[in-house]
Amino acid sequence: MSQAFPEWMAEVQARTEAALARYLPVAESIPARLHQAMRYSTLGGGKRVRPLLAFAAGEITGALPEALDAAACAVECIHVYSLVHDDMPCMDDDVLRRGRATCHVEYDEPTALLVGDSLQSLAFDILSRPLRCGPADAPTRQIEMVRVLARASGSCGMAGGQAIDLASVGKPLSQPELELMHALKTGALIRAAVLLGALCGKAMPEAEHDALDRFAKRAGLLFQVVDDILDCTASTATLGKTAGKDAAADKPTYVSLLGLEGAQRFAGELESEAMASLAPFGARSQRLAELAAFIAHRKF
Amino acid sequence: MSQAFPEWMAEVQARTEAALARYLPVAESIPARLHQAMRYSTLGGGKRVRPLLAFAAGEITGALPEALDAAACAVECIHVYSLVHDDMPCMDDDVLRRGRATCHVEYDEPTALLVGDSLQSLAFDILSRPLRCGPADAPTRQIEMVRVLARASGSCGMAGGQAIDLASVGKPLSQPELELMHALKTGALIRAAVLLGALCGKAMPEAEHDALDRFAKRAGLLFQVVDDILDCTASTATLGKTAGKDAAADKPTYVSLLGLEGAQRFAGELESEAMASLAPFGARSQRLAELAAFIAHRKF
Repeated sequence: MSQAFPEWMAEVQARTEAALARYLPVAESIPARLHQAMRYSTLGGGKRVRPLLAFAAGEITGALPEALDAAACAVECIHVYSLVHDDMPCMDDDVLRRGRATCHVEYDEPTALLVGDSLQSLAFDILSRPLRCGPADAPTRQIEMVRVLARASGSCGMAGGQAIDLASVGKPLSQPELELMHALKTGALIRAAVLLGALCGKAMPEAEHDALDRFAKRAGLLFQVVDDILDCTASTATLGKTAGKDAAADKPTYVSLLGLEGAQRFAGELESEAMASLAPFGARSQRLAELAAFIAHRKF
Repeated sequence: MSQAFPEWMAEVQARTEAALARYLPVAESIPARLHQAMRYSTLGGGKRVRPLLAFAAGEITGALPEALDAAACAVECIHVYSLVHDDMPCMDDDVLRRGRATCHVEYDEPTALLVGDSLQSLAFDILSRPLRCGPADAPTRQIEMVRVLARASGSCGMAGGQAIDLASVGKPLSQPELELMHALKTGALIRAAVLLGALCGKAMPEAEHDALDRFAKRAGLLFQVVDDILDCTASTATLGKTAGKDAAADKPTYVSLLGLEGAQRFAGELESEAMASLAPFGARSQRLAELAAFIAHRKF
């Protein structure tokens, strides 16, 4: 715990990169082009917010890094698959991601489709491998992890949020409708990252689980509100992805709904609520608190 | 066991249809359009070959129907997702499937993409629910099922086979190359159906597991060889999907490699080998033997 936050963050990011590189099929194995495209899309970029959340949540339950690798990488594989599919011409049709050409631009559309599909399978493959240094009731925990991740990813989670997003282009949404969309589109997977990290360690009393879940939901929404703010205040170069895209596409955002100042005020409230929900954990939640502050005040 | 094969088949198909209808989100739940499209693509059609294989394999280990529903529906969700993505314009660009408009034609491309993505998540969601009437060590078995299905679906399984298929258009493949492609593209999921069905019941001695695996591999290849034969001998109306497509797309098939008679001879050999591998099971493998014969001699 004595390590400063930036060093802790850099260490988890490097650890996640190395673990992903191990979990992904080697670039030379058949079908080589697909495996190269999977590695291109997954490695060497991204803030790794979800792995960071998994590792930070693992500190609450005393989870070991070897077990957390699996949770962190599984969630990140789902996240990357969603980016690859989201960037495709039939969706957002974007050419830039993490400062590089998107998968379908660097490779081709069918490959991008299969990269996303394969990364989703890989996420569940990772969760089903023998859990190194995991809790004693590992299989039961792993099945719970599969369940949390599958629900967070599917039509009542992330993919469902994308469907609402698609249907809402050019349509004014109310704040509750916008919150439902983001609770699914971004929030569900952020929440899953926190819950999966915690599931790698000791069992939690129900009250603690509920407090952690409250934190996870607030953090997920906070992440999205800040994303909307950055989409209209930061540059494409800083973001590593096309800025101003949502406004240009006439998509409802927190900025379009609340104005820039209103969105910033809302972000501040969410940060406070997230912090408050960590009260039961004391020092064990140091990393989660630091991460919530990082998410709130990030510039990219 | 006294039931005749056609009645048994009809019963499993009806049971699978009902179980899928329960597992799929209701059509009215948000996002309604996505859920309607998932139900449109999954329900009311298909031979349900993979669920039939899961139920037949379950007879080997004395698995109960309540547990087999999960295995059968999970595999079928993966199969349907692959059809929906495969039919998309950037892949095979097909308009007809199971005698109806394909998902992206009936709905739209982004919806088809999300339907496939969501059905994959649903497959793992189904496998992670409490297993009704399953074996005593259910969580361990379920994690094994997740592992088998994830590997069969991903880049070293079905999705990998599709990648090889894409790369092979207009390129002559040798028989070993063609067999690798099909072992992944169709074979991996057929094999998974058999293994998942068996995993729902009593533990198997290793020798039996190996024999069942040999059967599953032969049955998967047999299914594909017969598919290739039907693609050039049956009509679009009989198949419920566009006939002659592979030849028109200059895709390598067993018929283009071996000729029609050679492919038919090869199918006969595979059927014999599949049957021979069932020897250790005696009467317990009656349904698997009947299914292999059905796969070999089907007309659609």
